[in-house]
Amino acid sequence: MPDERPPRVEFQVHPSRYRHWRLATEGPVATLTMDVDEQGGIVPGYELKLNSYDLGVDIELYDAVQRLRFEHPEVRAVVLTSGKEKVFCAGANIRMLAAAPHAWKVNFCKFTNETRNGIEDATASSGQTWLAAVNGTASGGGYELALACDHIMLIDDRSSAVALPELPLLGVLPGTGGLTRVTDKRHVRRDLADYFATKSEGIGGRKAVQWRLVDEAVSRPAWPQTVAERAVELAGRSTRAAGPGEPGIELTPLSKTQTGDEIAYRHVTAKLDREAGVVEITVRGPDAAPPAGTAALHEQGAGFWTLALARELDDLILDLRSNELELGTWVFRTRGDPAKVLAYDRLLLDHADDWLANEIIHYLKRTLKRLDVTSRSFLALIEPGSCFAGSLLELALAADRSYQLVGLFEDQDPESAPAVLAPGETATEPAAITVGPMNLGPLPMGNGLTRLQTRYLGDDKGLADVEKRVGEALQAQDAEQLGLVTFAPDDIDWDEEIRIAIEERASFSPDALTGLEANYRFAGPETMETKIFGRLTAWQNWIFNRPNASGPDGALRRFGTGQRAVFDRKRV
Amino acid sequence: MPDERPPRVEFQVHPSRYRHWRLATEGPVATLTMDVDEQGGIVPGYELKLNSYDLGVDIELYDAVQRLRFEHPEVRAVVLTSGKEKVFCAGANIRMLAAAPHAWKVNFCKFTNETRNGIEDATASSGQTWLAAVNGTASGGGYELALACDHIMLIDDRSSAVALPELPLLGVLPGTGGLTRVTDKRHVRRDLADYFATKSEGIGGRKAVQWRLVDEAVSRPAWPQTVAERAVELAGRSTRAAGPGEPGIELTPLSKTQTGDEIAYRHVTAKLDREAGVVEITVRGPDAAPPAGTAALHEQGAGFWTLALARELDDLILDLRSNELELGTWVFRTRGDPAKVLAYDRLLLDHADDWLANEIIHYLKRTLKRLDVTSRSFLALIEPGSCFAGSLLELALAADRSYQLVGLFEDQDPESAPAVLAPGETATEPAAITVGPMNLGPLPMGNGLTRLQTRYLGDDKGLADVEKRVGEALQAQDAEQLGLVTFAPDDIDWDEEIRIAIEERASFSPDALTGLEANYRFAGPETMETKIFGRLTAWQNWIFNRPNASGPDGALRRFGTGQRAVFDRKRV
Repeated sequence: MPDERPPRVEFQVHPSRYRHWRLATEGPVATLTMDVDEQGGIVPGYELKLNSYDLGVDIELYDAVQRLRFEHPEVRAVVLTSGKEKVFCAGANIRMLAAAPHAWKVNFCKFTNETRNGIEDATASSGQTWLAAVNGTASGGGYELALACDHIMLIDDRSSAVALPELPLLGVLPGTGGLTRVTDKRHVRRDLADYFATKSEGIGGRKAVQWRLVDEAVSRPAWPQTVAERAVELAGRSTRAAGPGEPGIELTPLSKTQTGDEIAYRHVTAKLDREAGVVEITVRGPDAAPPAGTAALHEQGAGFWTLALARELDDLILDLRSNELELGTWVFRTRGDPAKVLAYDRLLLDHADDWLANEIIHYLKRTLKRLDVTSRSFLALIEPGSCFAGSLLELALAADRSYQLVGLFEDQDPESAPAVLAPGETATEPAAITVGPMNLGPLPMGNGLTRLQTRYLGDDKGLADVEKRVGEALQAQDAEQLGLVTFAPDDIDWDEEIRIAIEERASFSPDALTGLEANYRFAGPETMETKIFGRLTAWQNWIFNRPNASGPDGALRRFGTGQRAVFDRKRV
Repeated sequence: MPDERPPRVEFQVHPSRYRHWRLATEGPVATLTMDVDEQGGIVPGYELKLNSYDLGVDIELYDAVQRLRFEHPEVRAVVLTSGKEKVFCAGANIRMLAAAPHAWKVNFCKFTNETRNGIEDATASSGQTWLAAVNGTASGGGYELALACDHIMLIDDRSSAVALPELPLLGVLPGTGGLTRVTDKRHVRRDLADYFATKSEGIGGRKAVQWRLVDEAVSRPAWPQTVAERAVELAGRSTRAAGPGEPGIELTPLSKTQTGDEIAYRHVTAKLDREAGVVEITVRGPDAAPPAGTAALHEQGAGFWTLALARELDDLILDLRSNELELGTWVFRTRGDPAKVLAYDRLLLDHADDWLANEIIHYLKRTLKRLDVTSRSFLALIEPGSCFAGSLLELALAADRSYQLVGLFEDQDPESAPAVLAPGETATEPAAITVGPMNLGPLPMGNGLTRLQTRYLGDDKGLADVEKRVGEALQAQDAEQLGLVTFAPDDIDWDEEIRIAIEERASFSPDALTGLEANYRFAGPETMETKIFGRLTAWQNWIFNRPNASGPDGALRRFGTGQRAVFDRKRV
């Protein structure tokens, strides 16, 4: 990556094409073995030695986490281990980090964090409990990967250790959750955590257990049996809803077509306007009523509208985030029948004790969370013919601003404002939004609140007023009055107001927008998750930007050259 | 400030020397009028037009906040207003910001934040309720200053407004609390807050009230009387403990002597080792028993040990933070009689309903909080002859690591390790630490927890075990066993272990240390305060470091030149 134009990244992959992982299942226990192909870097210029990883390795891991949840309902415990001798994982590849442009580093770390949060979500929400079987040294991001698991076992062989060597070796932070999970999840005492983060060789054996860095240290002879026992124990405690022998559903390849200025899936289309720096995203509601009952839901599988939509949105977010850095504003529209969206929501919520329905809801939740931490500005345009209801209303609630048209478009110039309706179609009803049960709990943000709760933070009456209107189609003036949308322009003002909002957004500093949105979107309480994406990531990004790390004499660039880094010693 | 070496800053000031503020009191109401001297910049190169401020203006504000609490027990409401026509405050001076080196900007914002938190603390803890009487436009940091007040009144004259124009005009954040207080304190809806932060001209009148940006808009004719009424109302609701006519105590000038390598106060001495990048700070406990009862406490006034100590530490922290950027490690020692320290603590806590005792406790709390957000590494060395007990134990609990000697020093080489005892003195008792009531609640950190609670986060048993030992002199092995100190070396290992810890710290990236400590020190819950110092500040520092703000074509540098900023449009 010698220049600032990284290669185009594709996030779709399949186990048959994994280069770095092996996934095996045996009854309720899956084993995911990391065995990184040194020559398999996603871009040229480095070797992935010692089970170090880059974005390509992480893309496969994300795929495995997802498939375990949908394709393996029988799996109740996942053993994460290494296929290498004496090394579990050496963390993010340093030469890759040293050579990568800033945006690449930031996007890479964000995706890594999201996948690790997904591992914790599988443990917490799906009854698939992850167990790190650390059968060699876990260093930096390797230990941070283990930290995302519910239980950490370390082989006790006088040489294996867990370590966070970023500070002493690289002059950066353990920035993918390490600092937060060590204190807030594992409750390592802060002064011990400080010492630990200065010891590049790490800590192993009994001391690692005493300091709570791992849960147990197990001798080499006892290792295979203890790991197996522990996995069976964890599986036994699982609350996973699927019965034994229940078949999974296949995550079939997405239908995705890509041209220079469009990315199109079955339910989602994105038009890329490079001149304006805008992506116009249209999400289509279901064509038909939902299937009746869970048997039909399982039969539809990956074709079920909500799941298909979540997968398409997920892929689109990742694609645009990595590949279209200069498209700073995403404009969301929906199109379809709100009643059908609400019916799909109802089916899922009525059968939330079905493992697949549960998985779909949680996947939608994670996809919307991915949106929340995306450093792009979001506008939602609520036009006649749209279906911002229930789960799709979350797109408007996730937006930095929303606009809902009062009345209908009269004599609209189809060139000036790309309406959600196809040429020739007309809407006869004004745009409406509908709050549904999906907005009242099942899709929380990273801060633990729903998007509605975050919106009405400190305004209990405002929230209660909205909750009274559940199921009602709210036209623009009502919605504005209730505080559900930002602005409600009429046909006369619409085009101008939207145009100004978009142009203005494009005129602002992209960095300042990132900081603004990262603060505003997470009002109220903080969780480990928001601390990782806020406090920890913001400091890491600052450090990545400083010459002490990324300058020609900085620690990241000098690592492995035999030359010591040269630091500006001023503390800031 | 053309180079990276800013001028030496002195934080001691007195109302008789204020250039920018007027403080007047009338019974229970004080009026603090901002009337910035355009020519009074703390460094040359800019004019402080439109009541814009720099560090010098803020130093006077901090002094006023402190004096109101100690010298004016009768004051129960503080009206903050402007002495200029049509402008309340234009925020931080932009030319100053544009020309300032990164560390100066960061230190300036941090101090500004601390002073605003102090305003909120006066309202919450002292019954001195601050009222922003915004009698002209309050822009950027000017509005952020108003946000720190409990009640915001805006003059409704069709031209005055409140505004956060940082994003559109400067390409940076409203980074001194603005983004956090708008959503988390005032509960402005996030999409309205987004819109507000893009309108450089701001929002006034009724809309500012509707959006909760201010509490009331008052016409010009009604202004003086309404402000006066509101101040009297707030004063009437105050819980301030002092009776009317009760005299304050004078915050007399600190005795401070400064040489090239030492800063010395009455109870605190700091030795500056520029080669090692270390400050050795020694805090001395009280010489004598505390006065008996509050009358004697009031008589001692600023001479009372705890208050004197807090003022000296406060000044030292600010001095070192601003003036000694390359001294990255602060080593804390104490010296004196632990029993006397605990006796002073007891006097204060037994009389916490006395206004002065209350003020002293809260001031010590704020001073320790200032330590927590200081970007330096702290080591506490607990040696024979020390008095880490109660309030002074907080220094060890605030440290990133602490070392307590087992036994006594034998044959110590006075050159190699500067012991806390004077030459010729000997200690006969091993070092001990004592947990006291002051460690169990009155001195919370910014995260709302005590330092002990933060230390034992998730380890309720560990905390309970410590609480059982309150009042007991704990020698090193006991203290280590309880988890109260990090390491307990004996005489043989002490020098080497400390030397390595200090040298190692000096070898690490100063930036990575800042990030590491900012994360580790604030485990657990977050508050508005920690969000401001963590999430908001970290993003702002990142933005300050980016060419889009601070590069030659960046928005901060180009402001006022008539040239538009040139942005790298990549969103990161």
